Amino acid sequence: MTEQLAVAVLGAQGRMGIEAVKAVEAAADMKLVAALGRGDSLDTLLDAGAKYVVDLTVPDSTEANVRFAVEHGMHAVVGTTGWDAERLAALRGLLAANPESGVLIAPNFALGSVLASAFAAKASKYFESVEIIELHHPNKVDAPSGTAVRTAQLIAAAREEAGVPASPDATNTALDGARGCDVDGVRVHSVRLRGLVAHQEVLLGGPGEQLTIRHDSFDRASFMPGVLLGLRNVASHPGLTVGLDGYLDLGL
Amino acid sequence: MTEQLAVAVLGAQGRMGIEAVKAVEAAADMKLVAALGRGDSLDTLLDAGAKYVVDLTVPDSTEANVRFAVEHGMHAVVGTTGWDAERLAALRGLLAANPESGVLIAPNFALGSVLASAFAAKASKYFESVEIIELHHPNKVDAPSGTAVRTAQLIAAAREEAGVPASPDATNTALDGARGCDVDGVRVHSVRLRGLVAHQEVLLGGPGEQLTIRHDSFDRASFMPGVLLGLRNVASHPGLTVGLDGYLDLGL
Amino acid sequence: MTEQLAVAVLGAQGRMGIEAVKAVEAAADMKLVAALGRGDSLDTLLDAGAKYVVDLTVPDSTEANVRFAVEHGMHAVVGTTGWDAERLAALRGLLAANPESGVLIAPNFALGSVLASAFAAKASKYFESVEIIELHHPNKVDAPSGTAVRTAQLIAAAREEAGVPASPDATNTALDGARGCDVDGVRVHSVRLRGLVAHQEVLLGGPGEQLTIRHDSFDRASFMPGVLLGLRNVASHPGLTVGLDGYLDLGL
Amino acid sequence: MTEQLAVAVLGAQGRMGIEAVKAVEAAADMKLVAALGRGDSLDTLLDAGAKYVVDLTVPDSTEANVRFAVEHGMHAVVGTTGWDAERLAALRGLLAANPESGVLIAPNFALGSVLASAFAAKASKYFESVEIIELHHPNKVDAPSGTAVRTAQLIAAAREEAGVPASPDATNTALDGARGCDVDGVRVHSVRLRGLVAHQEVLLGGPGEQLTIRHDSFDRASFMPGVLLGLRNVASHPGLTVGLDGYLDLGL
Repeated sequence: MTEQLAVAVLGAQGRMGIEAVKAVEAAADMKLVAALGRGDSLDTLLDAGAKYVVDLTVPDSTEANVRFAVEHGMHAVVGTTGWDAERLAALRGLLAANPESGVLIAPNFALGSVLASAFAAKASKYFESVEIIELHHPNKVDAPSGTAVRTAQLIAAAREEAGVPASPDATNTALDGARGCDVDGVRVHSVRLRGLVAHQEVLLGGPGEQLTIRHDSFDRASFMPGVLLGLRNVASHPGLTVGLDGYLDLGL
Repeated sequence: MTEQLAVAVLGAQGRMGIEAVKAVEAAADMKLVAALGRGDSLDTLLDAGAKYVVDLTVPDSTEANVRFAVEHGMHAVVGTTGWDAERLAALRGLLAANPESGVLIAPNFALGSVLASAFAAKASKYFESVEIIELHHPNKVDAPSGTAVRTAQLIAAAREEAGVPASPDATNTALDGARGCDVDGVRVHSVRLRGLVAHQEVLLGGPGEQLTIRHDSFDRASFMPGVLLGLRNVASHPGLTVGLDGYLDLGL
Repeated sequence: MTEQLAVAVLGAQGRMGIEAVKAVEAAADMKLVAALGRGDSLDTLLDAGAKYVVDLTVPDSTEANVRFAVEHGMHAVVGTTGWDAERLAALRGLLAANPESGVLIAPNFALGSVLASAFAAKASKYFESVEIIELHHPNKVDAPSGTAVRTAQLIAAAREEAGVPASPDATNTALDGARGCDVDGVRVHSVRLRGLVAHQEVLLGGPGEQLTIRHDSFDRASFMPGVLLGLRNVASHPGLTVGLDGYLDLGL
Repeated sequence: MTEQLAVAVLGAQGRMGIEAVKAVEAAADMKLVAALGRGDSLDTLLDAGAKYVVDLTVPDSTEANVRFAVEHGMHAVVGTTGWDAERLAALRGLLAANPESGVLIAPNFALGSVLASAFAAKASKYFESVEIIELHHPNKVDAPSGTAVRTAQLIAAAREEAGVPASPDATNTALDGARGCDVDGVRVHSVRLRGLVAHQEVLLGGPGEQLTIRHDSFDRASFMPGVLLGLRNVASHPGLTVGLDGYLDLGL
């Protein structure tokens, strides 16, 4: 029988942390050995025998947490934001000195969302036209969403590399805002609607055909399969990986 | 056996006229008695015994065509644009003097599109949020589409009458255009994509639920069922009717 | 200032009841005066001064609850199942003797779902083809859903009344089940997918066009606007009303 | 300046052939040197200096056409059906003796459709649930479509290889056909609707999320970008390639 992964969750009282605790407990191949909240000592991880750390804390804490994990031979799966270029460089240095540890830093753990963005970018050079519609609950304060911006950037880069010209558009009379916003040449439209959570559609069009890649996130639970996939693969990916797509088998 | 309707098509060489000729010829309850193009004399209608006229000409011709039809006791189904308030007033006067004639002027003959707009307006007072996405081929020069503007106006009027507040929106940071344009308080987003024809989605959202009403127009043929429905009903609707919805049984 | 409605929730510890308690408490024009669970005495309603009762209990209790409410001059909004023809007849008799009370029995309180079914039935006589796709979570034990069956029946009745022939279908070679099931001549397809809650699409097709009416229920909260709408309207609808659509302004 | 590809279209009077002639004529990097119909001699290809052949003929002719092309040092892009295992083996033998010729045999030239199937198969091992809905015009005689069957087979193979269990389904009471048909364990639903052309949706679901990959084919023109892509790449792919995906850059 395979040994269970000994997992500790940091930030266990946060909204994501609560879900992660449940997900690890429910996974047959994992064992939750510690669940730390604000103020708990990292030494608890050693006593508990943790080999894997899930960091879902806050930007102020995440760097020290990951450093502690790596220095003690653990692997880390990180969903906390705040990893700027400087922090990433320092972490790479640390990992060079601890070559057996793996760290995954993922801005987005929703498998479907990561796949959708990758597919959209890959397909975009085969179509004349591409636009993005993202739809969220009306309490969201920014538009467009960060995921939509990243998707547009991936698409723009793929099209530029392939030498695909801009999407055709004969519009010469428009109400202000009708054609959405422009992210690196890709039009993005932001819908805000009560009842929704987080949704995104990439529309790709060519003569006589359309390809639509849509992702719906209904619930925070949608991030957990990605967290578990990260835990199962982080040990076999020593060093730093940024982005869950680094662990996905997307070669076709 | 029921007598066939004696139908003449004006503007028979135009794109819509060609479809109308085919549709009338294919309808078992109709007989095409004349198909007039630019320069043909309206007197041909009398020789041919036309009782019903379909006008799919140009703004410069349509008023004289309809006047001729009404003055000679025919009914008219009109898809030509250019009927401003002055022309409509004059036509109402003419019809008052010819009370047996019926005239239908319809800016949109696509049954599905007319139904979609009516349903969206009716539903809109029961939902907190409503937005419109319209999608067209990239050769379209205006944004948003005329149909989207009219749908937004119908929705805005229905919500105002019912005292429904504006759709909630917490956006405080946005790229220019991300949230679409504003038509009477309703957000409208215009997508332009190769491969598309004419499509519209009205999204209505409330706590935990969404209602979506979408219409796709793939082909000019989509207007013909509406033209035929107009011809079959115009005689029983003497006077002027503006909008195909006046002939639809939409009471629920 | 308008007086608040004095509302009691029966079945307040059930999943729906918990939502109803929250919704009534959050409504500015209502006051929650009682929240009864299994075993609580109905006499509590009198002491609390309840004028409106929301019954979200079980088939074994609902009839006695509604009888008590009507006999004591209250109005009742009922979401519990189990109201067969015999029970409805008895209730009509009771209401004839208590003509000031109103009772609404609604199998479905999701406004969007009720509207979607009504719109689909109304539109269906204008299109050659109609099919239904319903999509639910994979724990659902029956297929198709009750809502899909009712929608298909409404559509079938509307088309029969209008003399619309069956949807065209040239299929002569099919894998078993490919074309869905047949409900009164309407094809219904049932999708079961992890992550979904309750969703339904009615697809209507004619030459060159499609009308799609889709309802998504993401959350039990979607039923509460319908419950509140019922409470606000039940007093002005004395006697028995079956179906929330009886209170909706659907005339177009 | 790059030399234009000298292209001949075989089956030039068929529905696909007519589109191919137009597409080749419109492509700046190609020159149409011959357009052959039924009964025309293949020797015309030599006189015309054809270097590339598009075969859109019939199963009875395609093998001889391709053989002629290969034996005369041309490359061939083939959309005709009828290439069974025996014919493919013979063609491989022929190409072994003519190693500079490339032949592409593609059952489907719609880029978007090929991409959609590849993406769906790739994604399917990351989701608990997967189902397919295909939608076509009502004159189609078979259900499900060949593309849906192939997509289901690709998905089933990908999931089996990854050890993913069957999609969960608690259905224990169903009307006959409600849950669609079963293709290698994947549920497929076939909708037939007037107004549609050829459409397919793959729905993938996990906890709290859904990924939808949809392809719409509105028009035969949708096949032409794939034919042109085939022509542009066939010379650099000597030997036999089956399936347009062999030429697509799908590594992610």
